[in-house]
Amino acid sequence: MVVLLTGGTGGAKLVLGFHEETAPEDLVVVCNTGDDSLVHGLHVSPDVDTIVYTLAGLIDPAKGWGIRDDTFTVLDQLRRLGNETWFQLGDRDIATHLTRTRLLAEGQPLSRVTAALCGELGVRSTVLPMSDQRVETRLSTSEGELSFQEYFVKARWQPDVLSLRYRGIEDSRPSPGLLEAIHDAVLVVVCPSNPATSIGPVLAVPGVREALRGTPAKVAAVSPMVGGRSFSGPAHKLMATLGVEASAAGLAAAYRDFADVLVIDAEDRELQPAVEQFGVDVRATSIRMDTLADKKRLARELLRLV
Amino acid sequence: MVVLLTGGTGGAKLVLGFHEETAPEDLVVVCNTGDDSLVHGLHVSPDVDTIVYTLAGLIDPAKGWGIRDDTFTVLDQLRRLGNETWFQLGDRDIATHLTRTRLLAEGQPLSRVTAALCGELGVRSTVLPMSDQRVETRLSTSEGELSFQEYFVKARWQPDVLSLRYRGIEDSRPSPGLLEAIHDAVLVVVCPSNPATSIGPVLAVPGVREALRGTPAKVAAVSPMVGGRSFSGPAHKLMATLGVEASAAGLAAAYRDFADVLVIDAEDRELQPAVEQFGVDVRATSIRMDTLADKKRLARELLRLV
Repeated sequence: MVVLLTGGTGGAKLVLGFHEETAPEDLVVVCNTGDDSLVHGLHVSPDVDTIVYTLAGLIDPAKGWGIRDDTFTVLDQLRRLGNETWFQLGDRDIATHLTRTRLLAEGQPLSRVTAALCGELGVRSTVLPMSDQRVETRLSTSEGELSFQEYFVKARWQPDVLSLRYRGIEDSRPSPGLLEAIHDAVLVVVCPSNPATSIGPVLAVPGVREALRGTPAKVAAVSPMVGGRSFSGPAHKLMATLGVEASAAGLAAAYRDFADVLVIDAEDRELQPAVEQFGVDVRATSIRMDTLADKKRLARELLRLV
Repeated sequence: MVVLLTGGTGGAKLVLGFHEETAPEDLVVVCNTGDDSLVHGLHVSPDVDTIVYTLAGLIDPAKGWGIRDDTFTVLDQLRRLGNETWFQLGDRDIATHLTRTRLLAEGQPLSRVTAALCGELGVRSTVLPMSDQRVETRLSTSEGELSFQEYFVKARWQPDVLSLRYRGIEDSRPSPGLLEAIHDAVLVVVCPSNPATSIGPVLAVPGVREALRGTPAKVAAVSPMVGGRSFSGPAHKLMATLGVEASAAGLAAAYRDFADVLVIDAEDRELQPAVEQFGVDVRATSIRMDTLADKKRLARELLRLV
């Protein structure tokens, strides 16, 4: 069994690679839920949705989120009715959120709701939200306190981020089966997602970090950046909130207590000693994932670690 | 000022006639909310929506409900995700329900939410839900207890109805301004909607019937049937639950305590004595409203009563 810890867009590329290179039933994908938001009263779980749509073959490949060829009729009408519509929701996507919101309101936990959605969409891998409890990543910025979506989508990650916190994390518990999956896996991969806002919340759920430290599985992390800059999004801008520098070395510092291997880009090869000083092995290779072939190759390289 | 008490489809025809024949600002349309339902977690208010869409020029004229040229992408996807989809919701229609549900969840009363939706859609008449409190028409039928939508839409009004009740009616209060509108009007019209399930709930809101009895306005009711059968829907089948026969005479019996005039179809002219025995005046004319001209002509005839 392979366990993948991931956020949305960036991590989803590697998740797809693994999905193509392993038996889907052997994959457990643990998703950040710190970005979950109420949008028009609907419970939107952006990272869970990106992963589920990716595994279901529904993802919009150009955007990296939402459903391919979706329409935006509801959103257009919401705008006409005077609602704020900076958060894009496609029509078919809204069906997901309506179903989730109703099932949650009926008292089902998010993990069970996610499993039900996966079942209806023919997803054979296990997708686990990091927790059934509500956790919200809150950013203290130069423009006031923002949710992740307000920062990332509405403010286009332009404000300076002074600090962040995962509201509710103390009272959260790992989703049922999450710790067991980490313990029973042969390989755990921290996907190339934002260390502060995607991976950070998953690691902060009480018990998860300890499980990663204690598992007999090989634990590998894939860098989301090269040359001190993220492939996409603000990962490099937010590393400082973790108290580390925006580089592969900073990543090694942040993950050193549980990571056996850090996979960095071949272009960052000169950082190998800086990573190794934290007691983390290095594998330098191409970590760009522009094509499906890239994604599959990187997954294969990771599978070869065990 | 003219006050119209109405349900959805049938009554909406006459509401449109009045809208064309008077200054829209002078119209107060009081809508049944006994059919309101939670559908996929959304607060759907079918009669309010039919009236608002009618007054906004958005109504689907063929169906008599929903928005013209609407698409059903969300509903199709909801079906794919395993949801029951016998209740039709168009995409643009869903934007209305999302907005309403969110505003209600934020604590706004239904009357204010309705006014906000009217404002955004350019409706200049006043649309009042009968009450801000939740009232639900429940039917005891040969197939068990059903909500109105389950009976009307899902079961296609085929089960025998033994009795009905308006759950929550004792604790309901008329919407703000409703009793004042009835008192201040020159004309109050009970539209040709189902007496049991559309008009019945409005009349049962504590204070409404008393206001109709006490108003100095002329109070006219328009029959929803001819020859003992409704123009559409199950009105004639449900009259027995009011303890009256399915005819203009039965209607006169049901409304006699407040109605000055009952407008019946010219084909029912022989029922005039049976109506008048209840102390209700009769106006026999064509009450079919197939065309816009029909609707306007009937509204004009009613306006001529005062």
